[in-house]
Amino acid sequence: MIVAFHRGTAEADVQTVVRTLETRGLRTARSSEPRRPILAVVDSVPDDVADTLEAHALVERVERPRGTWRRVDRAFRDSPTVVDVGGVPFGGPGITVIAGPCSVEGKEVIEEVADVARRAGAHVLRGGAFKPRTSPYAVQGRGAEGLRQLKAAGDGAGMPIISEIMDAAHLSAFVDAGVDCLQIGARNMQNFTLLKAVAGAGIPVMLKRGLSATIAEWLQAAEYLAAFGAEGIILCERGIRTFETATRNTLDLTVLPLLRQWTHLPIVVDPSHAAGIPALIPPLSRAAVAAGADGVAVECHPRPKEAKSDGAQALLPGELSTLVAEARVVGAAVGRSFAPRERGAHAS
Amino acid sequence: MIVAFHRGTAEADVQTVVRTLETRGLRTARSSEPRRPILAVVDSVPDDVADTLEAHALVERVERPRGTWRRVDRAFRDSPTVVDVGGVPFGGPGITVIAGPCSVEGKEVIEEVADVARRAGAHVLRGGAFKPRTSPYAVQGRGAEGLRQLKAAGDGAGMPIISEIMDAAHLSAFVDAGVDCLQIGARNMQNFTLLKAVAGAGIPVMLKRGLSATIAEWLQAAEYLAAFGAEGIILCERGIRTFETATRNTLDLTVLPLLRQWTHLPIVVDPSHAAGIPALIPPLSRAAVAAGADGVAVECHPRPKEAKSDGAQALLPGELSTLVAEARVVGAAVGRSFAPRERGAHAS
Amino acid sequence: MIVAFHRGTAEADVQTVVRTLETRGLRTARSSEPRRPILAVVDSVPDDVADTLEAHALVERVERPRGTWRRVDRAFRDSPTVVDVGGVPFGGPGITVIAGPCSVEGKEVIEEVADVARRAGAHVLRGGAFKPRTSPYAVQGRGAEGLRQLKAAGDGAGMPIISEIMDAAHLSAFVDAGVDCLQIGARNMQNFTLLKAVAGAGIPVMLKRGLSATIAEWLQAAEYLAAFGAEGIILCERGIRTFETATRNTLDLTVLPLLRQWTHLPIVVDPSHAAGIPALIPPLSRAAVAAGADGVAVECHPRPKEAKSDGAQALLPGELSTLVAEARVVGAAVGRSFAPRERGAHAS
Amino acid sequence: MIVAFHRGTAEADVQTVVRTLETRGLRTARSSEPRRPILAVVDSVPDDVADTLEAHALVERVERPRGTWRRVDRAFRDSPTVVDVGGVPFGGPGITVIAGPCSVEGKEVIEEVADVARRAGAHVLRGGAFKPRTSPYAVQGRGAEGLRQLKAAGDGAGMPIISEIMDAAHLSAFVDAGVDCLQIGARNMQNFTLLKAVAGAGIPVMLKRGLSATIAEWLQAAEYLAAFGAEGIILCERGIRTFETATRNTLDLTVLPLLRQWTHLPIVVDPSHAAGIPALIPPLSRAAVAAGADGVAVECHPRPKEAKSDGAQALLPGELSTLVAEARVVGAAVGRSFAPRERGAHAS
Repeated sequence: MIVAFHRGTAEADVQTVVRTLETRGLRTARSSEPRRPILAVVDSVPDDVADTLEAHALVERVERPRGTWRRVDRAFRDSPTVVDVGGVPFGGPGITVIAGPCSVEGKEVIEEVADVARRAGAHVLRGGAFKPRTSPYAVQGRGAEGLRQLKAAGDGAGMPIISEIMDAAHLSAFVDAGVDCLQIGARNMQNFTLLKAVAGAGIPVMLKRGLSATIAEWLQAAEYLAAFGAEGIILCERGIRTFETATRNTLDLTVLPLLRQWTHLPIVVDPSHAAGIPALIPPLSRAAVAAGADGVAVECHPRPKEAKSDGAQALLPGELSTLVAEARVVGAAVGRSFAPRERGAHAS
Repeated sequence: MIVAFHRGTAEADVQTVVRTLETRGLRTARSSEPRRPILAVVDSVPDDVADTLEAHALVERVERPRGTWRRVDRAFRDSPTVVDVGGVPFGGPGITVIAGPCSVEGKEVIEEVADVARRAGAHVLRGGAFKPRTSPYAVQGRGAEGLRQLKAAGDGAGMPIISEIMDAAHLSAFVDAGVDCLQIGARNMQNFTLLKAVAGAGIPVMLKRGLSATIAEWLQAAEYLAAFGAEGIILCERGIRTFETATRNTLDLTVLPLLRQWTHLPIVVDPSHAAGIPALIPPLSRAAVAAGADGVAVECHPRPKEAKSDGAQALLPGELSTLVAEARVVGAAVGRSFAPRERGAHAS
Repeated sequence: MIVAFHRGTAEADVQTVVRTLETRGLRTARSSEPRRPILAVVDSVPDDVADTLEAHALVERVERPRGTWRRVDRAFRDSPTVVDVGGVPFGGPGITVIAGPCSVEGKEVIEEVADVARRAGAHVLRGGAFKPRTSPYAVQGRGAEGLRQLKAAGDGAGMPIISEIMDAAHLSAFVDAGVDCLQIGARNMQNFTLLKAVAGAGIPVMLKRGLSATIAEWLQAAEYLAAFGAEGIILCERGIRTFETATRNTLDLTVLPLLRQWTHLPIVVDPSHAAGIPALIPPLSRAAVAAGADGVAVECHPRPKEAKSDGAQALLPGELSTLVAEARVVGAAVGRSFAPRERGAHAS
Repeated sequence: MIVAFHRGTAEADVQTVVRTLETRGLRTARSSEPRRPILAVVDSVPDDVADTLEAHALVERVERPRGTWRRVDRAFRDSPTVVDVGGVPFGGPGITVIAGPCSVEGKEVIEEVADVARRAGAHVLRGGAFKPRTSPYAVQGRGAEGLRQLKAAGDGAGMPIISEIMDAAHLSAFVDAGVDCLQIGARNMQNFTLLKAVAGAGIPVMLKRGLSATIAEWLQAAEYLAAFGAEGIILCERGIRTFETATRNTLDLTVLPLLRQWTHLPIVVDPSHAAGIPALIPPLSRAAVAAGADGVAVECHPRPKEAKSDGAQALLPGELSTLVAEARVVGAAVGRSFAPRERGAHAS
């Protein structure tokens, strides 16, 4: 249950309510909402307590929970949350583009990709350094060195970076390298150990939806992050598993308007992993923007055929530029600007 | 296998090829393509025949089949097909809006809805008269009388009409009422008896995707229609069945760019049945247009709570107007105009 | 709502209740249950009527509906239903085996298969004459001639026959050929036109589950058959569509114990179409019997490689014999006998 | 590629082959198969190397890989693997029953359950101490204390224990408590960090199938365990996520015969989590045994309504006894005995 007090309610009065709830064994979470006190009662609220809260003179409105999440519920904030990733906002009026290769494959290639991404108008540079290989015999990524190369490339292009973390034991490598946003992959959406670890790292987290996760399970995972202290949480839709075999997965854009009602978190769409076919990525990116996405994340590579992983779905530089330009026009059509590049970059 | 001849190839030369194929037991279909002869070989082509066709001096290109369909394959036409529904084009540069109630509930209400749809800018009026009720005890629709009421309402508003046909035995009622487009519902996508019957009716057909139909199965069903003579075929995506329970179905917009590559048929998206929640329908309609839909089909009702079926997902008149206006802006952003209302309507 | 009266309740008293319900606009269905009167109220029952029925002196128990079905609900009968297919019971203490080729491919082959099936211990001969081809260019089956060949082969082996009907227009061919059980295929589970037609034919019907049909939708389709007069209805589980691609479909054996609670209809399992791999069919047949199936339906062919359709999943004669023998042993382990072959057959 | 040498091939000859492969950059794994040397080449094998191996005089047969797994492939062993869990075999001629509560809820209850399980004929005691709660506010289990209580209860009943591990950081608690088998839950099937950690613990591992994992992905995860040194690996099917909502998940018993062909690992079925309804568990257990399961894992509780988690699906003591007795009979019908209780237990 989420309890929004009237504007100007004194902190002492809020604390009185908190203590009363505690006497009933009910734990609360406090919104950082500046304009009015908002509390979430994380435990199940008995009817008599709910009635009392609803009738309370200082309470403006009470929302009964949709699921087991509270801190990420739409009602926990007055306005949608804007997450700052190294100076780039996710969730404001603008649309943010994340671009980069599947894997960091060395200093030169990632710097080349960073330059391509920057020129195309992307805001954040992505690249995998620790890769979730399903085969124990596959190449496992460049690890900490890859993160440093990604960071250097991002710095060179004036772009913050995002990279997937698979193991809490690697967290210090991400912190040391100055990674601006930690990505939790689809396979790890319910890896609660990892969620707790990244939640405490003081770095924004982008949480991908599990391949067969319901929207409710996804928000519960986000709540995990929030409950363990994550400062900024971004959701990322990347396709779900269905019976269809013509595409890798089925992109579920319905989550965009639905999550707008259910949560205050920003939402990014990754059409590259969902579709797995380059020609589908630009129209799906446009569709994502039109349906309300706060950002799109796409894979690009200067020479996809040379890419060591997932090259088949990477966009060429020119395709990325076109995608960004088109998304910008569709964004304008639905009242969204493009997020400014807030960190000084090289002139192109 | 689809065989496109060079422009200007003489008909006699094409017939020579056809006869040669027939001697090998291979049946062909002829495209109505005006600019060049195109043949589809509907049977599986032996390698030696394929090699001969590829090397033929009059043949410009040969496409190996993606599936069992031929006539609806993209390669069977030089340009995407435009289907004319009572003067309204589906598949041209414009985007077409189909709107109306789930069911025709009587003369006055359908006329009121037609007026609402027309004022909002919709092009085609929809409404169910024969309803696919899963319960034998449910109301079964108004039948032929409902079709006549729908037609009268469409005529009054200057809009052609579309309505679902469930049974070949009802075909004469649809023909007599002057229904402009026959809708095949999701449950009947593989009802081959019905497909054959409507294919021969000389009326355009809108074929909804089955709830768990693969894209290949959907095109095979469209091929059925084409093989049995359907003049105009429109595909309609309306959501697939997945594990997600927060929405009625999962709208699959990836089909839009994929089908552009696979077929020349126009594609409409029905977000109302997919989502089942009115607030999701406008953003999903915008996304459909951005991803390349040739049209959207939505349910509307002047007083949804009074609707006898599916009222919960119907848009209010003002919501429909906003949806059309927004889709128009997104359409412009992706280079699509709005299909003109070609039949004279009342001034509003 | 289903209302079971005490044993010995006079018919006049039941009729009084029926008339009272009718005055409230509530339609009823009457169970053929001999031991006590049982009524189903097919419409939604207002609370006050439900209270009155529950408190009625002649009423033993009242069951609130699980779904929209009534006549096929478990509560509509005191005992599970036994369906007689040409003298072979489905649903009694015994387990019934249906065997035969995918398609009837001519007189000699079907007679050979019938002999194989009979010797193996199968009870009913299956074979397709009108085939649901997804491609309009595929062979469409032997039609009425195939049905006559199937019947002759069944008669020769002393076995009743079952064959799939796809089109109400073919019904007279099935009746004329003396088909003992009409099969509704998965694609036609919600082809309500076809359901109505076969319901009135006076021949038992085996209703396959749709590829993505929920259990509730399946029972609703069965209710359709029941409401339109079908005398004997058998359910057939044949696998559902999931993300798994290693098998054709995913056989759902959970339906067996669940349907035992929900319906009084007999249930057959078809592992051939679900798995599509011969080696999986015997263990899945054993599992089906262990989970409570009333029968199994399998494909067999003396020379699978020569079969014109689905040969890859057909069992060899020896494999069929082993399957039946094993199913018999597992049946005994769960307290099920094997249904006797009730019609005089040739000695083998 | 898997290479089986003739019996009696000298070790030196095998090593020569290994070194030759290494010169081509091909890594190998060696089967512990006593009767003949078997090698798996874990990397992709070039055609010329494959040809050479197939023609090699000492090589009896060569198997081309079905997927990315090698060590768990059926061809890597002559006979199916038997995993020893604290003296109880999984995978031999017998069938093994795992029973216990969802969560360890204290010393007295778990000892009571252990006694119930032992009397019913179960072989292994299960119970969760670290629980994978999807809500951060839910009770998180008793942790190390719970493991000690579980072990004490198992010792008292003469039963080895199995418990789910969610976090590599907890591994020492499992080792210290003497847990006999580590369970990897469905959500962690692709938590490769955890897989590596448990693989090195020297304790058998039971790997549950992910909720939407394909069979290939499941075996790849098992290969991960094997590649990182796991001694004994048991697979556990626990239902997959489908569109069906009448049951918690859809139990996929087709995996049993399919995995028999694909892998040498033993396979256990958990119908409790798949179905979520107690009445379905005994028939599904019988079906699992009939389809070839090496064991079943079920939840039981002396007073399900008092259980703090998942009580609704727990079997009563009497139901468990009946289940074991019935599974024994079905096992006998398919040629399986019941695994003896090999550790001395109290007389009952």
